[in-house]
Amino acid sequence: MKRLKLLALFLFSALALQVSAQQKKYVMVIHGGAGTILKKNMSPEKEAAYIAALTKALNAGYAEIKAGKSSLDAVEATIHVLENDPHFNAGKGAVFTHDGRNELDAAIMDGKTLMAGSVAGVTTIKNPISAARAVMEKSEHVIMVGAGADQFAKEVGLKIVDPKYFWTKERWDGLKQAIKEDSTKAVLDHGSKKSELFGIKNHDYKFGTVGCVALDQAGNLAAGTSTGGMTNKKYGRVGDAPIIGAGTYCNNETAGISCTGWGEFYIRNVVAKTISDLMEYKGLSVAEASKIALDKVGKMGGDGGLIALDKKGNMTMPFNTEGMYRGAITADGKIEVSIYK
Amino acid sequence: MKRLKLLALFLFSALALQVSAQQKKYVMVIHGGAGTILKKNMSPEKEAAYIAALTKALNAGYAEIKAGKSSLDAVEATIHVLENDPHFNAGKGAVFTHDGRNELDAAIMDGKTLMAGSVAGVTTIKNPISAARAVMEKSEHVIMVGAGADQFAKEVGLKIVDPKYFWTKERWDGLKQAIKEDSTKAVLDHGSKKSELFGIKNHDYKFGTVGCVALDQAGNLAAGTSTGGMTNKKYGRVGDAPIIGAGTYCNNETAGISCTGWGEFYIRNVVAKTISDLMEYKGLSVAEASKIALDKVGKMGGDGGLIALDKKGNMTMPFNTEGMYRGAITADGKIEVSIYK
Repeated sequence: MKRLKLLALFLFSALALQVSAQQKKYVMVIHGGAGTILKKNMSPEKEAAYIAALTKALNAGYAEIKAGKSSLDAVEATIHVLENDPHFNAGKGAVFTHDGRNELDAAIMDGKTLMAGSVAGVTTIKNPISAARAVMEKSEHVIMVGAGADQFAKEVGLKIVDPKYFWTKERWDGLKQAIKEDSTKAVLDHGSKKSELFGIKNHDYKFGTVGCVALDQAGNLAAGTSTGGMTNKKYGRVGDAPIIGAGTYCNNETAGISCTGWGEFYIRNVVAKTISDLMEYKGLSVAEASKIALDKVGKMGGDGGLIALDKKGNMTMPFNTEGMYRGAITADGKIEVSIYK
Repeated sequence: MKRLKLLALFLFSALALQVSAQQKKYVMVIHGGAGTILKKNMSPEKEAAYIAALTKALNAGYAEIKAGKSSLDAVEATIHVLENDPHFNAGKGAVFTHDGRNELDAAIMDGKTLMAGSVAGVTTIKNPISAARAVMEKSEHVIMVGAGADQFAKEVGLKIVDPKYFWTKERWDGLKQAIKEDSTKAVLDHGSKKSELFGIKNHDYKFGTVGCVALDQAGNLAAGTSTGGMTNKKYGRVGDAPIIGAGTYCNNETAGISCTGWGEFYIRNVVAKTISDLMEYKGLSVAEASKIALDKVGKMGGDGGLIALDKKGNMTMPFNTEGMYRGAITADGKIEVSIYK
């Protein structure tokens, strides 16, 4: 009798675990950037606006998935919402370069075919993630940069805007503040060649990206990332977002990954591909692999976060900053959105 | 007695193997591009010129290593020779874009620190590999593109040239031929959106890169790659050469790698980092890991080659094209140069 009870308990537990695992099958995960995001610095209105935007973005992509569309469609629809919202450093909310321009980068990758597309330093494309997708689907290439990429987007019929579209008062004030802080810093630091040339000392100027990984009903993964880059950046600097393997990577056999943070460290560590390879070559879970890759960034002195989703619907959203705008949605439509640690 | 003989034979064999391994400690390996390179299409003069150039390049880097300089110095010196030689599609010998411009890309990475630098789409820098190194050493960034990268190179004192410096008759004729072939092709193929936009059908237009991996006396690896890109390319296309993890990667714990070939496939497969990860996470040799990574490119329909050198001086130079300009030099100065299969 005791044995029967134990067996019943075991079966019940196994069933409960299975149900729990089923309940936790995620179909989409998103981020809106990582950095020094502290509750004490956030107004209730702003916090509510971020939560609403993340929720809206998740719902937009989820609608595609529920309708049987591809994970690429879901990623594009989700990132459109984030690009069109001035709260995020991508699309409409892009930060300014030192010269007062908005230079946008984006990448997308299809986990089924390993096709990928990316654009960097574009200035007239309303939704850079769609340009990245057009590069992937309508050209032989993977990466296009600068005016050539803008021209391509125009020729394939994407929505082109006057660069003024990207002007927002908050980002413009951010540039002025950054220039002021940097010039002060440059005086203090004038012995250093690096700070003379760059002087980008306010750590959070490095941050701000949006990203999405989706898993569709056919079991295919897609990942995308879009960013306005770094406030006050010079010299045509490009970060990790448009670099396949660094800020963006996707493979049905492992996971889809989108990173956000101090891009230079993500490039040097080829973070997204490292996660995929740790899964493929060492058999690690998506969470274990992501932790190891992010720890490498941290040990080098870099920071940020990432989102990753595997083909079974397991997801992880680690970060080593104070906060990361993030969210996920399960197969049955349950939304989870968070900002702080 | 028989057992003693066997033991002696065994010891002798082990010693011989060790000597052989010592003799085969490579300190540098280079490539000058892969593609449809057939002996029947090569004049003796041209063949001799390529062999002389590869030998000169190897000697230039070897002199740095013998003098106790860093592997970065060796890579830079070697690639200068190849960039300054019009035979190779890098620097002086760069091919033309569709608009009749020369847009150059380069990357360098330090295996000791995992620092990296790269430039893409530059038009006035005589030696793009030096610009990549300056980005690595004199900026906070890893990647700079376009006019901003040219400006940075000028500000840090690199040799700036009029874009006309890169004009060569052979490459100009190559562009005219490519445009002619592509327009013919476009007529035949007019139903396809892709070929309308691109029409780059001559396969070998995709090729041409130079690269170097060096191992210095302190045991540090460095890798670099430089290219003039793809003949008749449009829309600011960037290939794998300046992408850390794709065409260029270096890590003292694994290997230094430089790739050449159909860049899009190298980007999608993140080839260089894949080789490093196969060594780190699966314990494969540099040759085994390189073969697997190149096979992935081949299975997808891409082609090209790569060079890789590990910290013990083991090197590999696989390619799946008809030929690859390549060479290596051992610690004791023995040079090996090859072109065909």
